[in-house]
Amino acid sequence: MTGFRFGTDVRVRFAETDAQGVAHNSVYLVWFEIARIAYLEENAGGYPALRETGLESFVLESHVRYRQPAHFDDRLRIHARVGELRGARFRFDYEVTRDGDTIADGWTAHACVDATTLRPTRIPADLAEAIRVAEGTPLGKPPGSPRPPPLVR
Amino acid sequence: MTGFRFGTDVRVRFAETDAQGVAHNSVYLVWFEIARIAYLEENAGGYPALRETGLESFVLESHVRYRQPAHFDDRLRIHARVGELRGARFRFDYEVTRDGDTIADGWTAHACVDATTLRPTRIPADLAEAIRVAEGTPLGKPPGSPRPPPLVR
Amino acid sequence: MTGFRFGTDVRVRFAETDAQGVAHNSVYLVWFEIARIAYLEENAGGYPALRETGLESFVLESHVRYRQPAHFDDRLRIHARVGELRGARFRFDYEVTRDGDTIADGWTAHACVDATTLRPTRIPADLAEAIRVAEGTPLGKPPGSPRPPPLVR
Amino acid sequence: MTGFRFGTDVRVRFAETDAQGVAHNSVYLVWFEIARIAYLEENAGGYPALRETGLESFVLESHVRYRQPAHFDDRLRIHARVGELRGARFRFDYEVTRDGDTIADGWTAHACVDATTLRPTRIPADLAEAIRVAEGTPLGKPPGSPRPPPLVR
Repeated sequence: MTGFRFGTDVRVRFAETDAQGVAHNSVYLVWFEIARIAYLEENAGGYPALRETGLESFVLESHVRYRQPAHFDDRLRIHARVGELRGARFRFDYEVTRDGDTIADGWTAHACVDATTLRPTRIPADLAEAIRVAEGTPLGKPPGSPRPPPLVR
Repeated sequence: MTGFRFGTDVRVRFAETDAQGVAHNSVYLVWFEIARIAYLEENAGGYPALRETGLESFVLESHVRYRQPAHFDDRLRIHARVGELRGARFRFDYEVTRDGDTIADGWTAHACVDATTLRPTRIPADLAEAIRVAEGTPLGKPPGSPRPPPLVR
Repeated sequence: MTGFRFGTDVRVRFAETDAQGVAHNSVYLVWFEIARIAYLEENAGGYPALRETGLESFVLESHVRYRQPAHFDDRLRIHARVGELRGARFRFDYEVTRDGDTIADGWTAHACVDATTLRPTRIPADLAEAIRVAEGTPLGKPPGSPRPPPLVR
Repeated sequence: MTGFRFGTDVRVRFAETDAQGVAHNSVYLVWFEIARIAYLEENAGGYPALRETGLESFVLESHVRYRQPAHFDDRLRIHARVGELRGARFRFDYEVTRDGDTIADGWTAHACVDATTLRPTRIPADLAEAIRVAEGTPLGKPPGSPRPPPLVR
């Protein structure tokens, strides 16, 4: 696991497990969202602040790769970073680790829209700058993943 | 199981099971809601219609009694009836059956409020009448349950 | 809010909200479970340890009273205590507070069973004693709630 | 929407919506699973039958593309097909339609394992044949999507 400066902790809830005895595959998207919101809170004044500027964001795509199952009560760290940010679109990358081992990864693609008109709206310059500072690296390059970046379609 | 004229079918989803191999205890409240909404659709023009009249409803209390566990892929019938309706408040009673056997029951208590002011608002007379017709029996009496009705506190 | 010595913190997840803009009524049972498990971890060697003794527990009943809605990102404290413990049965009481104000309360009733035979099994004496020490008060009395205790039916 | 012979209906539950007023992004994976299980029931004796043969399957990857939001009470059809089936691996493709319009699509990749050893196990010949008959077309080709097939990595 490299390239992540931010992470947040979750513990697998009993309600998140299924009859196979593992965390259900849909729950990872909930964990990704928790990490994304925590990231924005730490680096960009928070998602509530973003909404107060009259912006809203929508999830366009999600991808999860499950490598090892997670079990009840596991302590997991959900790492998140903004992998791309261009115009009205941005992509978050994630890694889920347990005791330092990556057990899952994935990404979500988003569009920033005007909350009233729902039209795509350029990400505010100060938010983009805050994220660039947080990442400490140029954005816009594909992540080191076997999959192409989702934003160019 | 007696006294229910209405029911709706659900099938236990794999995502609703937990690591004990049974439907998670919180899911029953989701099933109750599905039955409640289906009941209102059949008997009262539907929940969306209710909201269009400028009303909203809130859940005040919920109670579930789990008698037998439910498993993945079980076909369940969620029976619902309005057990009490007085002023701004109403209570739904539920029974969950599998092949005719009751595996759970419960009730939820609700308040009807003005969607704008959020102040308690008398249930519209025509909705109350439609429910009385649907039930075919006087409302306002406590159900045949070992617990007192929740509306009088 | 009085009489609770234990509590655990949750933050309302976006995925836990519904189209009314509040935490869905079923989610409270998930929070209760989180508090129950954390309580057992702190006071009784943990739920995993309990299962290793060959015991399992089932939820028999649940009750929630919703006083004030909870919103996305709210920091909540879920207080839990064992309100009754007798033979194979026990009851947990809960209060949900936000900034010190109680926004919900409830209880869940449970049975302790042998994991193999699923027959009701007396709660182990050392676990019962650990809980009595944790609570610092005699158990077995009904809580100061307007409803009767659920275990005597 | 072309190329799907199978579909199953879901109705958006209130509990599946979030504070943006739309179905939460994680719920699509639950719907995909419902369609996958219904597909196996119709075409391959069912998932329970599969498990009785001593096999189990795990989700390796999931992908969702959200095109239009889904709202409370929407009637959706979840189309599913086996897009690839090779050795121990298979991939399901999905499209979510509302009134004939595609509002989302996606795929999930799976591995078939021995339930005891958890080692990858070739999909039984009769199951593979049943699926080939169900699809009526050769499998193993990439779907007509802008993304590469997930099984070759």
